[in-house]
Amino acid sequence: MSPNFIHTYVSIDCVVFGFDEKQLTILLVQRNAGTGESKALKLPGSLIYNEEDVDDAAQRVLFELTGIKKLPLKQFKCFASPDRASKQEDRLWLDKAYKPDINRLITVVYIALCKIDRKLTNISRYKHSEWRSVNSIPHMPFDHNLIVGESLGEIRRWVEYEPAIISELLPQKFTISQLHKLYEAIYNRFIDIRNFHKKVATMPYIVALDEKEKGVPHRAARLYKFNKKEYNKLKSNL
Amino acid sequence: MSPNFIHTYVSIDCVVFGFDEKQLTILLVQRNAGTGESKALKLPGSLIYNEEDVDDAAQRVLFELTGIKKLPLKQFKCFASPDRASKQEDRLWLDKAYKPDINRLITVVYIALCKIDRKLTNISRYKHSEWRSVNSIPHMPFDHNLIVGESLGEIRRWVEYEPAIISELLPQKFTISQLHKLYEAIYNRFIDIRNFHKKVATMPYIVALDEKEKGVPHRAARLYKFNKKEYNKLKSNL
Repeated sequence: MSPNFIHTYVSIDCVVFGFDEKQLTILLVQRNAGTGESKALKLPGSLIYNEEDVDDAAQRVLFELTGIKKLPLKQFKCFASPDRASKQEDRLWLDKAYKPDINRLITVVYIALCKIDRKLTNISRYKHSEWRSVNSIPHMPFDHNLIVGESLGEIRRWVEYEPAIISELLPQKFTISQLHKLYEAIYNRFIDIRNFHKKVATMPYIVALDEKEKGVPHRAARLYKFNKKEYNKLKSNL
Repeated sequence: MSPNFIHTYVSIDCVVFGFDEKQLTILLVQRNAGTGESKALKLPGSLIYNEEDVDDAAQRVLFELTGIKKLPLKQFKCFASPDRASKQEDRLWLDKAYKPDINRLITVVYIALCKIDRKLTNISRYKHSEWRSVNSIPHMPFDHNLIVGESLGEIRRWVEYEPAIISELLPQKFTISQLHKLYEAIYNRFIDIRNFHKKVATMPYIVALDEKEKGVPHRAARLYKFNKKEYNKLKSNL
């Protein structure tokens, strides 16, 4: 028996990625407790309930925030630094939003993907949510900036391990230029377009359609779609 | 403010993988509280301390168990089912080993790799530890069997994403046959040896040495080593 073992609260936080055809974006929410500091944007999240698994808490928060039942979702990592909730303004907010004297707060972070043009139906306790480019994330409460930074590394690993997830960020039909921009956004670097075309040629699950873009000011480009069946066939052969 | 938000204890558990040249193995420990049930083998783990991050807790448990300061270690997943610590025998053990009335216990699982022939210096509170083949894991407390099952999937993903980790399970110098057996063990399936030779030929970081096995009853096979420099070069070109 040791007095050193600590009773803690556990929350989940969600990093919801979208893609606005130029940049990778993240869905942030506004703290809604009444203090001055509380207007800060932050990651959507919640303490877990009594009878709730962390995975279920993440599904709950995302559903309340978006109205979407099944977003592609992945547990990323537990953030548990002893001082992650020690800033005065964060403690004040915790007191108001949840309950006083939360001694320690550990969070399990989830990464979710959401097509940015989907209509979101927010029934959560957050009054306001917005998409922010990963290149203009504001200063956020707790360790949320650290979490976003590490999540960017994780989404790259996710794409490498499971390329199918890129289709979750693109429209149903997309151009190679859109796909190219998404890869550039995820990897946050210039990718030579000719090399990229060669790369796409090695992906039998990116299928050219007999269809072109409509109503664009430039020369209409061919549309492609993601073929899940081809992809799964390929994957099962690995 | 909701009474539904719960105060919980957080632990870490470690799945330490080894390879005995035939099978993938896991390092288990014996519960050392005094009850009849307490002799059960389980994963090594600990509640986290007051001022301790989960990563640090995992390092601490592994160091106390093995005497090794830097084992390759990876946070895998948070297991938080509300009833994972609800069995009577597990509650009794928690009462004795830690403190009474632990209302809920959430665990963060780590995967570590350890060459099975390393000398382990156990200074932990566990009196007994042993390597067990993943094919003969006993019935364990809490959700430890579930955790081991999911960890087997995770170690496959880890190898695919970062092939270098296989070298952490092999001797410094190894034969292709040993490497082949390790891959078969990790994937838990037959892998055709000729195809495997072709696969190895595409890995410039598996380097043939001018050296053969010694003192073996069969025809001595060529030895290979893992070239970290080649590997990192290749990786940075991705």
